Amino acid sequence: MSTRNIIIALDAMGGDYGPESVIPGAALTLKAHPQLGFILFGDEGQIGPLLDKEPALKAVSTVVHTDHKIMSNEKPSTALRSSKGSSMRLAIEAVKEGRAMAVVSAGNTGALMALAKMVLTPLPGINRPAIASIFPTRQSDTIMLDLGANVLVDAENLVQFAVLGAVFAKLHKNVAQPSVGLLNVGSEEMKGPDHVREAAAILSEVEFPGHYYGFVEGDDITKGTVDVVVSDGYAGNIALKTAEGVGSLTTHLFKKNVMRDPLGILGSMMAYFALKRFQDQLDPRRYNGGVFLGLNGLCVKSHGGCDALAFSSAVNLAAELVEQGYVEMVGREIEHLSEQKSFLSQEL
Amino acid sequence: MSTRNIIIALDAMGGDYGPESVIPGAALTLKAHPQLGFILFGDEGQIGPLLDKEPALKAVSTVVHTDHKIMSNEKPSTALRSSKGSSMRLAIEAVKEGRAMAVVSAGNTGALMALAKMVLTPLPGINRPAIASIFPTRQSDTIMLDLGANVLVDAENLVQFAVLGAVFAKLHKNVAQPSVGLLNVGSEEMKGPDHVREAAAILSEVEFPGHYYGFVEGDDITKGTVDVVVSDGYAGNIALKTAEGVGSLTTHLFKKNVMRDPLGILGSMMAYFALKRFQDQLDPRRYNGGVFLGLNGLCVKSHGGCDALAFSSAVNLAAELVEQGYVEMVGREIEHLSEQKSFLSQEL
Repeated sequence: MSTRNIIIALDAMGGDYGPESVIPGAALTLKAHPQLGFILFGDEGQIGPLLDKEPALKAVSTVVHTDHKIMSNEKPSTALRSSKGSSMRLAIEAVKEGRAMAVVSAGNTGALMALAKMVLTPLPGINRPAIASIFPTRQSDTIMLDLGANVLVDAENLVQFAVLGAVFAKLHKNVAQPSVGLLNVGSEEMKGPDHVREAAAILSEVEFPGHYYGFVEGDDITKGTVDVVVSDGYAGNIALKTAEGVGSLTTHLFKKNVMRDPLGILGSMMAYFALKRFQDQLDPRRYNGGVFLGLNGLCVKSHGGCDALAFSSAVNLAAELVEQGYVEMVGREIEHLSEQKSFLSQEL
Repeated sequence: MSTRNIIIALDAMGGDYGPESVIPGAALTLKAHPQLGFILFGDEGQIGPLLDKEPALKAVSTVVHTDHKIMSNEKPSTALRSSKGSSMRLAIEAVKEGRAMAVVSAGNTGALMALAKMVLTPLPGINRPAIASIFPTRQSDTIMLDLGANVLVDAENLVQFAVLGAVFAKLHKNVAQPSVGLLNVGSEEMKGPDHVREAAAILSEVEFPGHYYGFVEGDDITKGTVDVVVSDGYAGNIALKTAEGVGSLTTHLFKKNVMRDPLGILGSMMAYFALKRFQDQLDPRRYNGGVFLGLNGLCVKSHGGCDALAFSSAVNLAAELVEQGYVEMVGREIEHLSEQKSFLSQEL
């Protein structure tokens, strides 16, 4: 409702379960962030009954009906052409028009990225927006970007990503000068691709809201060596998917070996709470949410297969970044980066 | 000894534990491959007493003394210049001179790669050798390459890697036509870097000892979607290190949560054998060994921190590939690939 401070627009129809994850997910987030309000875009007939079960959420939500939704298997280019009036597009437009401060969708990633970029447009000084996510580590969380928005980038793009990620880490981790590492290969002799080495040179010179740590390797992501890991979308996406794959293989083999063995089952029951704590710390649902950074407005992509808890994590992320003024702060920092550009091009 | 069929040269001084891992590791391998013989290069004073404890190994081994070894922290370029007479170089030269059929070292990766390439030289038709390893998956093993020998490659290099990997998979997995996938990013709209897309076009046309599956993503590595995953050394190294990092984070959190909780400890004891089976299936020591493929001779790099079991896995890998005639077979396949080259350049 309009009396609320922070309004989040939700694409209620996105993801495999649509409103069945979105509505209870938003209700979960509201418990942690009671100052939020929501605009829900989608089929009123499906949303209504679910909202009736969540009176607290219903009290702070407006429903905007549409029966048009973008399918998850549509090609982004096709989806874009027929996107007018869809729940996803309407939700993004609510941010553009200032009726909401962030949008969350579990729908078609390619379409969401293309629509968010087109409707919200990049911040002045940003050539390419990036997708960022939070990773669990041995220490505190690490922010990683780009996770696949841009396959090919140049050094300047990577430097912009460093700023986008550093401001994210500053707010999320509450550290004054987050450390930023560039993802690279391990060996001494091969210091990686040109764009990564050039970005290293710029980051060593430039003033930005973090401090440049140096190159990091794939295993540094989960070691928590730095607050922010920056890479191009090619390596970043492959690292993300590989990490998901190893996690899922581990779960699969644990179930196969331990949960099909009588003593294994008994032992697991005995260790239930300890195992649950362990599981919770690596639960991908708690880390659900890829944020599109570098746009005039915030857009969070939730995993398509999300349940209510997972969707709620994505909404929490949007709420947290809005509450702390991410977009305004990053806008100033990118401006400051751009001011240093002429100086930099002389130096290098 | 010279009466043995297959001789493997071992750099006895490589790795964090040197002969203390190498000697018992080789003894373990000998049990599984009783037809092997060994030449051990290194400090006789250290090797002798350890060899006395392994009479079966001693009976089939020759020791070549040298007190020069390459340090693990030396820069490869420096190591290369002062490599003459070192245990690593002598072991590689034994392969070059036909006294051994493969070399295994746990020493300095960069130096080993540079020396192996210089001394053994690439096979005719191979522009760049690659590093390959075996990954555990939900199904059977997957071969992945390049894991970091070459940061920047072109499409032709990737096609050569596909052949190197396909022959490896054919022998290791005993499949007639291994499936080969190119590692790429996920989204439909962004089909990845030029060299990956060009390699896909060539692999769809060319006759090689496998069949081209298409693009695969990071999580396909552990799903076992294909027998061989091919990538450049940049993405491949980042994927490998990320996978290692997630594995080590999982172990760390399991120990932290379950093994410090009284019921967790009791439960783990009860589930001991089930947990052990689970652990064994993901034990990185069983997958130890990066093979340098594409050279006139086989060179296997063991992890520097290896214990005897881990070192033994690397020696097993060398033995397996030698026994099955990897180098000869791959030489013929690369020749066949080169013959198709003029036809291909007309087509594309």
